[in-house]
Amino acid sequence: MTTPLAVTVPLDQGRAYDILIGRNLLDEAGTRVAALKAKAAVIVTDANVAALYGERMRTSLEAAGLRSGLVVVAPGEASKCYATYAQVCDGLLVHRVERGDLVVALGGGVVGDLAGFAAATLRRGVRFVQAPTSLLAQVDSSVGGKTGINSPLGKNLIGAFHQPRLVLADTATLDTLSEREMRAGYAEVAKYGLINDAGFFDWCEANWDGIFSGGPARDEAVAICCRAKANVVVRDEREDGERALLNLGHTFGHALERLTSYDSQRLVHGEGVAIGLALAFRFSARLGLCPGQDAGRVANHLALAGLPTTLRAVPGGCGDADALVEAMAQDKKVRDGALTFILARGIGQSFIAPGIDAAEVRAFLTDELRAA
Amino acid sequence: MTTPLAVTVPLDQGRAYDILIGRNLLDEAGTRVAALKAKAAVIVTDANVAALYGERMRTSLEAAGLRSGLVVVAPGEASKCYATYAQVCDGLLVHRVERGDLVVALGGGVVGDLAGFAAATLRRGVRFVQAPTSLLAQVDSSVGGKTGINSPLGKNLIGAFHQPRLVLADTATLDTLSEREMRAGYAEVAKYGLINDAGFFDWCEANWDGIFSGGPARDEAVAICCRAKANVVVRDEREDGERALLNLGHTFGHALERLTSYDSQRLVHGEGVAIGLALAFRFSARLGLCPGQDAGRVANHLALAGLPTTLRAVPGGCGDADALVEAMAQDKKVRDGALTFILARGIGQSFIAPGIDAAEVRAFLTDELRAA
Repeated sequence: MTTPLAVTVPLDQGRAYDILIGRNLLDEAGTRVAALKAKAAVIVTDANVAALYGERMRTSLEAAGLRSGLVVVAPGEASKCYATYAQVCDGLLVHRVERGDLVVALGGGVVGDLAGFAAATLRRGVRFVQAPTSLLAQVDSSVGGKTGINSPLGKNLIGAFHQPRLVLADTATLDTLSEREMRAGYAEVAKYGLINDAGFFDWCEANWDGIFSGGPARDEAVAICCRAKANVVVRDEREDGERALLNLGHTFGHALERLTSYDSQRLVHGEGVAIGLALAFRFSARLGLCPGQDAGRVANHLALAGLPTTLRAVPGGCGDADALVEAMAQDKKVRDGALTFILARGIGQSFIAPGIDAAEVRAFLTDELRAA
Repeated sequence: MTTPLAVTVPLDQGRAYDILIGRNLLDEAGTRVAALKAKAAVIVTDANVAALYGERMRTSLEAAGLRSGLVVVAPGEASKCYATYAQVCDGLLVHRVERGDLVVALGGGVVGDLAGFAAATLRRGVRFVQAPTSLLAQVDSSVGGKTGINSPLGKNLIGAFHQPRLVLADTATLDTLSEREMRAGYAEVAKYGLINDAGFFDWCEANWDGIFSGGPARDEAVAICCRAKANVVVRDEREDGERALLNLGHTFGHALERLTSYDSQRLVHGEGVAIGLALAFRFSARLGLCPGQDAGRVANHLALAGLPTTLRAVPGGCGDADALVEAMAQDKKVRDGALTFILARGIGQSFIAPGIDAAEVRAFLTDELRAA
């Protein structure tokens, strides 16, 4: 076996787990998963990933003596719904997943969230392994135990906290991602620098193309992001406080996804986040919290990586300021009707800003929509 | 306010909660729930219970300054399904239940399990209150934090552990139960004596009619059962061991419910449990573990209370021994394909018996089906 980069998430009560990062880790899945002592490990994946990596993963699991099987869902955000959740649960039951067995989520963020939620609730909880195959999933959604699906009333409104027992981030799988998916994942990479690590943002400005092309910069970036996320998650697993910082860019981003009907032709999650990051910094600058220069640097870097940074960049538009504020009010980061944002005093200096006045937000968005 | 009987479930990490037991506690719901410091408390109930107690509960909540609302589902076990779960989650979202708010499960076991699971997974977990209105729910399902729904592949296969913050058992609501529902709940009452409290089984033999007619014996029985369950739950919240004792009679019972297609016209849960209890004792006696006399006493008492105690009592039949064993093998108390039963060395002396040979079970059931 190769020696992958390793990040430990040191949770209590025997729930600590490792994130392993390296090229071609998929072929080690069997050995690594068998070490968790299960009889069966059933893979949940989508049709695209199944075609690329399904049999390879299954072969690795069975070679290690695990009974395996595949539950395949349709690709795309639309699968994070009640009906597909039921399909996955029943599929796992058909494969006779018992309490001591494992679910393996093989795919991007949608598969990880969906399969993780199914694992969290199958027989009131079975263990699961994340094998993320998108950059977004490797640096964000596969770590930290947030699982769930969307309701017609909003994104990620249904779910559970359920930590994986292992994360296997095979960075060679990113070679098969489209440029657009790589860019979308990269928005989350840059986010970690913007939250609390100005040095990492500098590093990103210098090395971002190495992440896209593969090689050591990619593995290193994934490891840095996972370590950053792990640190936050360990201190605030259930998002009672600090973990909300990870939502930098997401309050705006989720509203945009909502207003484009989660139609990935128009906008994928990472693009919404990229616009959201740029907006969060410009809004912070407008409120006099952050130098305008930092806001400019954020937007410039994201644009250089090919990401959208303005409301006008949303194909087909995103509605007016009222629609945006209303969509944000549906977000679960609302308490008692007040809007909570993550704002910044500069690059690497984000903070939680509760009780932001909706009128202030509306005025800002109106100007953003008007800007040439 | 009256002074109800109170049982505390002393869970750790700030999750301890009270079970309050007494007549007309529904009218105190507002005061009791408001003490939990929420802005909103939205009721989930079924159409039958809504007609009887929905507005009364809502009035009590609103009089205490809580924003409230009702989410009403169809009565019956069929509502413990994916589609109704989605309906409840979306209904709670329409009522804008936020993270600090409360869900109130008002009804029997179906409503409690369903609403509890919705609360466990709405916004990755909101608090909930159980207000059980059936005997079964008051002595069993409302306590202990098991929530969930059925899959087409088996009962309670989807769910979560999610402890309520308060249980309000208004024993006057049992006055509106049908005789059949009272009897079905009574099977779970008797079960506590059979598990590990021979003295309580003696008491039941002397006082069972007082439980049916109302009055102090009813409140006392509910309190004793809740205390017994709380003791087990605190020692083994997630059923890694001892808690499985609470499944006495349930491995057979669940198989019978499955083979009668969860059709409550034919068999309700408590009736399946009654048959299961009688079978568990006769099977124990056949294996030479338990005096035949005790098995006889169990069946006699359940029959006196009007409950079925044989496979032949299942309306429309329950399939042959093979079908029963197959149905049991689907139960989640199966590990690595071996059947686990709860057996007994006598009344009040139950124990977990893993690795029971399926052929032994099949032979027993064949004889049971043949018996005159």
